[in-house]
Amino acid sequence: MSDMSTHADAPRSPGRPRSVRADEAIIEATLDLLAEGSTIEALSIEAIATRAGVGKATIYRRWSGKDALLLDALRRLKGIQPQPGGHSVRDDLVLLVGAVGQNIDPRAARIMPCLVPEVNRSPDHFQLYQNIVEPRRKVMREVLRRGVASGELRADLDIEVAMALLTGPMLIQRMLRWHPELDDRLLPERIVDGILDGIRAR
Amino acid sequence: MSDMSTHADAPRSPGRPRSVRADEAIIEATLDLLAEGSTIEALSIEAIATRAGVGKATIYRRWSGKDALLLDALRRLKGIQPQPGGHSVRDDLVLLVGAVGQNIDPRAARIMPCLVPEVNRSPDHFQLYQNIVEPRRKVMREVLRRGVASGELRADLDIEVAMALLTGPMLIQRMLRWHPELDDRLLPERIVDGILDGIRAR
Repeated sequence: MSDMSTHADAPRSPGRPRSVRADEAIIEATLDLLAEGSTIEALSIEAIATRAGVGKATIYRRWSGKDALLLDALRRLKGIQPQPGGHSVRDDLVLLVGAVGQNIDPRAARIMPCLVPEVNRSPDHFQLYQNIVEPRRKVMREVLRRGVASGELRADLDIEVAMALLTGPMLIQRMLRWHPELDDRLLPERIVDGILDGIRAR
Repeated sequence: MSDMSTHADAPRSPGRPRSVRADEAIIEATLDLLAEGSTIEALSIEAIATRAGVGKATIYRRWSGKDALLLDALRRLKGIQPQPGGHSVRDDLVLLVGAVGQNIDPRAARIMPCLVPEVNRSPDHFQLYQNIVEPRRKVMREVLRRGVASGELRADLDIEVAMALLTGPMLIQRMLRWHPELDDRLLPERIVDGILDGIRAR
C-alpha cells in the first residue's frame, strides 16, 4: 500500500489534499470495523491500516495511538454540537436536549451501545467515553449556571444532577427506543418543561 | 445427551426436581452464550441445547421457541421488581427509580447494551425488549396515576413523559456510568425530588 499522508512533494489532486483523504479513509475504516462488530480490544492499527489502504506509519504520523484515533472517530459519529443562543435558558436547554443521542452517522447505532460494556470494564477506555461526553456536558453546564446566576433557575440547584435529569430521558429514548409511544420530536420540549416546572401539584 | 426434563417416572434427586434443574441449565446456557457475544440472530436452540447438556426436545417442551426462551432468560437478569408500599408517592418513586437498571446478574452488563442495536433492527426483537420493559413501566404508571388521583401530582401530568423523566437519568448512570461524579446511592432520591419540585426558581 502506498503512503497517502505526505502531500508536500506529491501533486495535489483537484479535490482535497491527499493527507485529508488519508485521514478520512482511516477514520472511516475505524468506524466500519467497529460497526461490523470488532471490539475496541480486538481493533488493531494494522487492521485499520489494511482496511484504509494506508501504511501503519501514516496512522502513527497523525495519531499517537489507538485511543487517540478512536476518540476522533467516535466524535465524528456525533457531529458538531449545537451552540446555545444565550437568550433563554429554556430555549437553550431544548436545543441541547434535542441534540442528545442524535448521531449524524448511522453506524453509531451499532457502535455506541456495544462500546459501553467494553469501556466500563477498562479504566483507559472509560476515560475515552468521558472524553466524548464531557465537552457536551460542559456546554449544558454553562447554560444551567447562567440560569442560576440570572435567577431563572433555583439558587440551590445541583447542576450535575440537573444535567442527568435533562440528558437521561432523551438518551434512553434515542438509544433504546425506550417507549415506542413517546413522540421523539416533541420530547425535548416536554422534558425541559417537565423538569423546569416539576410534576408535583401546587 | 440425556433428556433431563421428564421427572414423572425418574427418581427425584434430593434437591430440586430434574425438570427445574434442566430449565435452569437452559436459561444459564442462553445467558452464557449471549454474554460471550452471540447475537440474538446467531443464537440457535441447537447451540443452547448443546451448552445446557439437554436435547432440543427438552427446550421445545418448555418454550415455544427462541423468543419465548429469550424473554424468560432476559427477565431473569433483572430479578424481581420491588413492590411499592402504596403510602407515599415520593417514597414509592424512590423505590422504583432505585431499581432502574439494577441487574441481579453480572452478565447483564455485557448482554443488555449490545442487545439494543440488534432489537432495534428487528420488529420481532423490538417487541421482546418491550415485553421486558413494559411490566416495569406498568408498576411506575400505577404509582403516578395514584399520585394524580390523590392530588399529590399535577392534574395535567403526562404520565408517559413523567416515566421517561424518572427512568432516564438512573438508566444512563447505571448502564453507561454516564457521569462518574454522581453518587449512584443518593441518585434515586435526587432524581425523584428534582423531578417533583422542578429546577425553575420560584
